[in-house]
Amino acid sequence: MRYDLPALKARLKGIHIEDNPALLRQKSRDFYWYSPTLKRQLDGVIGDLLAAPASEEEVLRILAACFALGIPVTPRGAGTGNYGQAMPLAGGLVLDLSRLDKVLEIAPGRVRAQAGALLADIDAACAPSGQELRLHPSTYRTASIGGFIAGGSGGVGSISWGGLRDLGNILSLRIATMEASPQILTLSGEEVQKIAHAYGTNGIILDVEMPLAAAYDWTEAMIGFTDFAEAAAYAQALGEQDAILKKLVSVIAAPIPQTAFLRHRRFLPEGMHVVLVMLAPMGSAAFESFTARRGGTMLFRSDLLAEADRHGLPPLYELAWNHTTLRALRVDPAITYLQTLYPHPDPLARVARIHSRLGDEVPAHLEFVRFDGRITCFGLPLVHYTSEARLDAIIALHEELGIPVFNPHRYTLEEGGMKQTDPAQLAFKREADPKGLLNPGKMIAWENPEFDFATGRTYLFPGLEGRDAGEAG
Amino acid sequence: MRYDLPALKARLKGIHIEDNPALLRQKSRDFYWYSPTLKRQLDGVIGDLLAAPASEEEVLRILAACFALGIPVTPRGAGTGNYGQAMPLAGGLVLDLSRLDKVLEIAPGRVRAQAGALLADIDAACAPSGQELRLHPSTYRTASIGGFIAGGSGGVGSISWGGLRDLGNILSLRIATMEASPQILTLSGEEVQKIAHAYGTNGIILDVEMPLAAAYDWTEAMIGFTDFAEAAAYAQALGEQDAILKKLVSVIAAPIPQTAFLRHRRFLPEGMHVVLVMLAPMGSAAFESFTARRGGTMLFRSDLLAEADRHGLPPLYELAWNHTTLRALRVDPAITYLQTLYPHPDPLARVARIHSRLGDEVPAHLEFVRFDGRITCFGLPLVHYTSEARLDAIIALHEELGIPVFNPHRYTLEEGGMKQTDPAQLAFKREADPKGLLNPGKMIAWENPEFDFATGRTYLFPGLEGRDAGEAG
Repeated sequence: MRYDLPALKARLKGIHIEDNPALLRQKSRDFYWYSPTLKRQLDGVIGDLLAAPASEEEVLRILAACFALGIPVTPRGAGTGNYGQAMPLAGGLVLDLSRLDKVLEIAPGRVRAQAGALLADIDAACAPSGQELRLHPSTYRTASIGGFIAGGSGGVGSISWGGLRDLGNILSLRIATMEASPQILTLSGEEVQKIAHAYGTNGIILDVEMPLAAAYDWTEAMIGFTDFAEAAAYAQALGEQDAILKKLVSVIAAPIPQTAFLRHRRFLPEGMHVVLVMLAPMGSAAFESFTARRGGTMLFRSDLLAEADRHGLPPLYELAWNHTTLRALRVDPAITYLQTLYPHPDPLARVARIHSRLGDEVPAHLEFVRFDGRITCFGLPLVHYTSEARLDAIIALHEELGIPVFNPHRYTLEEGGMKQTDPAQLAFKREADPKGLLNPGKMIAWENPEFDFATGRTYLFPGLEGRDAGEAG
Repeated sequence: MRYDLPALKARLKGIHIEDNPALLRQKSRDFYWYSPTLKRQLDGVIGDLLAAPASEEEVLRILAACFALGIPVTPRGAGTGNYGQAMPLAGGLVLDLSRLDKVLEIAPGRVRAQAGALLADIDAACAPSGQELRLHPSTYRTASIGGFIAGGSGGVGSISWGGLRDLGNILSLRIATMEASPQILTLSGEEVQKIAHAYGTNGIILDVEMPLAAAYDWTEAMIGFTDFAEAAAYAQALGEQDAILKKLVSVIAAPIPQTAFLRHRRFLPEGMHVVLVMLAPMGSAAFESFTARRGGTMLFRSDLLAEADRHGLPPLYELAWNHTTLRALRVDPAITYLQTLYPHPDPLARVARIHSRLGDEVPAHLEFVRFDGRITCFGLPLVHYTSEARLDAIIALHEELGIPVFNPHRYTLEEGGMKQTDPAQLAFKREADPKGLLNPGKMIAWENPEFDFATGRTYLFPGLEGRDAGEAG
């Protein structure tokens, strides 16, 4: 046993803990298995103990106890990430924040909620005020707000509001530090970026304040094109329609919609590339005019469907973003994916260039967003997986063509993200987690300041060394 | 007497009419006098009779009567336009729609109101639902929704929503045609563009359906820069902050704020170029971070001001758009203005180029907007007026530098707008106003299909010929 668990248990008296191995295993995982690489590397990862505090005071007691005993703490919300971000690479304590789920305050344009509150539950609480969260991942019905901020980047809503990285999409965060006497700090303005998308490596999010937008009964539409470039150009132009309010604009190349969207399949003719749109309902006549001008075929409109025909259909956002990957994977387990950005100038030319090089091996999936004041798209292309070497070659080809890859086959912040250390996150970790006990192994800059990203080598957390037994099938 | 007014009066029995000359003169005008050219051309324009219907049925009776007698009809809302658009160039009937002022229906994301309803009154009616109009001109407190649609283009709110020309910013219009038996038609989707910004030349707007946005108690801010280019770059970058919700981003070059914004003058140090911002209040910490990064000096923040210090200050939008012009004109009657667009690529380089050529003669005034999915700015530069010839030379210089001018010194749709006929508006006029009785003289394509825009000559409506007595001082 690496850690003094009996002493820890003694200190946590009165707090809900779990050491049932099956439960511990389940609560030590996320959707890392989307990636064959992460599946190979992380399959054996498991915490030594789980604690599920029911109050802020219990969180502080847990942190103080682990600090005193030198036991790592890996926080988790609902475990819906897919970079292994909530997985305790060094074992220790899994801090399950799902019981901190209260919506604390709702006001015009803002909501304050505890970190473990589920996104859909926050929106349900905001609905009477006619408001909802600006942004959510496709795991809206199961993900927590704290997990979204700690490990997400945007998603549904980004076509109107940009991403979590944008100033103003997280209003403030109350966090606990990992010290002998943990402190509670409130960060707002650009300060929130120290903690956002840091995987819980430099503070424990207790509660969050998020901006709200007007809530609508969003109309869902699917528009078909026989030509993929036309579908992509339509989606870009729809994004650029400033007066048609959208929440989602996705493009998915045939044959993925026809093979993976099982419940919607009857609406999807063979060979059609499909654009998914969530639209504020007052814009429907403008949307119809726009779509007719561009020659799109209206395949599906939720508001024109009889009640009986809507029955059993998942919400459209559960066909988009990472749910596209999930649905494709369910039908064909040999599929994996990438996360890419098509920057200006001329993002659609980059899309065309990479997909003409990769053909059927990498079916296209685009998610349109606002990015630095303009409309562009992220890619979540699907990959018919053959080997890690081939996956690396596909990634290298993207980067050669000026298409950055946020590699979802890496569990560190730096390798999954911007290929460099975030100095504000690192500096804040020095203050808030001086012993380096929070979610070890995820921030290379902390673990190995000498690591040279230029070599192209993958960082391997020493705690995982025993487990990395060569490439899996 | 050109028209058979006794016969008209007989047919209008029971409808409120006016022929008092002072009142008729007042109700035959708008803010045309912002332009010395229009002031010279239009000062004598006056209708022969005013009718102020109290119901849709009365509107139809008036139109039928005027059609039967061949009497022109010029509709007006509140007369807050500044292109002479509501002025009856051929005399005849002034159709005052201000009594049709009911808010008919409010639903999530939409409002339906009669044409004469004032913008501020519509918002007051929508406030209990937490909603407000997306867009309004700076004449918000006095302008009608029908007049805004018939003669406006956007304004406050365009930084988030684009302009009225954008599909989705007008949901539907009910209009009456000018025929023997006037019809009522409903237009939606792109069909509304036949009528929008047509000055009432091809149909009488009865009621309108407009999209709503979330209402906020908008924070007002003024940020100062000693360098004008830095102020403009700050405004552009603030516009591009996708997660900071704004309703107004304006830049006004010194010394105009200091000389013209009399009630705010105590906040405005000499020499500072000023950025006006209306900001959704939940974004204030993000806004402060952003402003600090860019080195702006916070001169004024409505939410940080004591109640006593706010007393007597006009709302910030009444310093912006055409109210900037109005305030400058009040202080110096020799000032006039232009309306321009700085298109991509590199709108700020165009701003720098024109203002370096024109110097103090043309103080800069920029209004930032979304336009085709991107942030750019319109210009409403102030002009120290000397002569019409010099004004034309200033306009020509803009156009040489790739800066289109929507000439506010012309009363026709084509010369004020896009330098060409809108074929959809013209075709619709043939159907809806076969005798050409609606607002005569405003659509060149109807009056004189042979008119050659390429000559650069100004169109002169024949009905005005007797009045055009050379250039005024």
